[in-house]
Amino acid sequence: MSNLTVVKVGGGVLEDPRATEEFLTRFAAIAGYKVLVHGGGREATRMQERLGIPTLMVEGRRITDAETLKVVTMVYGGLINKQTVASLQSKRCNAIGLCGADAGLIRSVKRPVGEIDYGFVGDVERVDGQQIAKILELDMVPVFAPLTFDMMGNILNTNADTMASKIAVALSSYFRVNLVCCFDKPGVLSNPNDNSTVIPVISSDTYQQLKAEGMITDGMIPKLDNFFSTIKTGVSSVVITDISLGAGTRLTLG
Amino acid sequence: MSNLTVVKVGGGVLEDPRATEEFLTRFAAIAGYKVLVHGGGREATRMQERLGIPTLMVEGRRITDAETLKVVTMVYGGLINKQTVASLQSKRCNAIGLCGADAGLIRSVKRPVGEIDYGFVGDVERVDGQQIAKILELDMVPVFAPLTFDMMGNILNTNADTMASKIAVALSSYFRVNLVCCFDKPGVLSNPNDNSTVIPVISSDTYQQLKAEGMITDGMIPKLDNFFSTIKTGVSSVVITDISLGAGTRLTLG
Repeated sequence: MSNLTVVKVGGGVLEDPRATEEFLTRFAAIAGYKVLVHGGGREATRMQERLGIPTLMVEGRRITDAETLKVVTMVYGGLINKQTVASLQSKRCNAIGLCGADAGLIRSVKRPVGEIDYGFVGDVERVDGQQIAKILELDMVPVFAPLTFDMMGNILNTNADTMASKIAVALSSYFRVNLVCCFDKPGVLSNPNDNSTVIPVISSDTYQQLKAEGMITDGMIPKLDNFFSTIKTGVSSVVITDISLGAGTRLTLG
Repeated sequence: MSNLTVVKVGGGVLEDPRATEEFLTRFAAIAGYKVLVHGGGREATRMQERLGIPTLMVEGRRITDAETLKVVTMVYGGLINKQTVASLQSKRCNAIGLCGADAGLIRSVKRPVGEIDYGFVGDVERVDGQQIAKILELDMVPVFAPLTFDMMGNILNTNADTMASKIAVALSSYFRVNLVCCFDKPGVLSNPNDNSTVIPVISSDTYQQLKAEGMITDGMIPKLDNFFSTIKTGVSSVVITDISLGAGTRLTLG
């Protein structure tokens, strides 16, 4: 099996032109098959402001009414995605910008209305790993915007972390997959205020211990829970790092 | 050689939801390999208004400064492109939304500054027909937004008619190509005020005659000149029609 690296980068990173340039240069240099999944929340929020559309967030998730859906479709699927592709092409990385609707690659279901109505938000239902593999075999590098679709003609706003995990899991039938998630810290820190305290490896066992000891901060828990579930379902490894794409923290089983 | 239909549809059509629905249903029903190239100028103009960015047009072409480039990248590459893809997917047409930057498919050069500085506008330099053919062979239906790229990291705003023609010519090495261009009239009319006067066939010879007689209206001349040059360079036929995708006017050699 060939190696495949799935990299997820948040919208915050792609805000600053110099950091973006650095990150994309490093991404372009990754050997072997690769996929990029980007966010774009901050840019969407700014565009909503300019258009006079209020931004409503619940637990870090954007409430996506029809007007907000237009904004995220434009900003994620158009502005950020195509600028990223043009930049990668200039670095001789054969990027192809896609969202989940393209070629029917990532289908989702509109999140059911519970206590909160998230609006046009999709929970990933099916990733067509086989078709993504075929695109990779054409020596193209898929760059995904965090948008999916239902089969009823709707684009749905989708969490980029979840998308990256689901893509990684689906592709693990075809490749040995390393999922790399870039945050604003160089890894999981034992002291949140000291970037030199990166924990190099966290196994699923030590993770339970670190959680119990309160060493893992609240915001990281749902993310890490999610990442551990991906390595239980076929992904070889998950690395938490920043845009330097340094060694960071490697999550492992056992 | 297999048949391939390249359809170009202007942004005006994709304004009205019912007309769009009708058009996309007809497009989805076209047998064989196919490509869609869409515009989106009116939606871009509306978005510029909402964002307080003045729209400057010279001879029907949008002056594209840095702010305008962001708008067209969002509106063409994101909003219209992804909504079109989601709609086609719901009609079981395996659409994949692309712009010229994706997979390096359509490279252009920034138009040199002459009497007019068009800004970030690209003149198509090279269409990678072979790569587009490979995407078609995966049973995907490319849907192109009118954006291209240079190799320096820039997206460039590009005329959709020109893009459609260049794609049709490039693919004529691999397919027997029929280029179908949808305007607001059912074809080239001998009486511009009477939609029942569609001229069924115009050969390159009769075209010169019709021009000399003043039968072809000004706005159509650059378009038809362009279409006749495509059939001189390998495209089998060009059809001028409206979104009904009816028989329209067929342009032929001789």
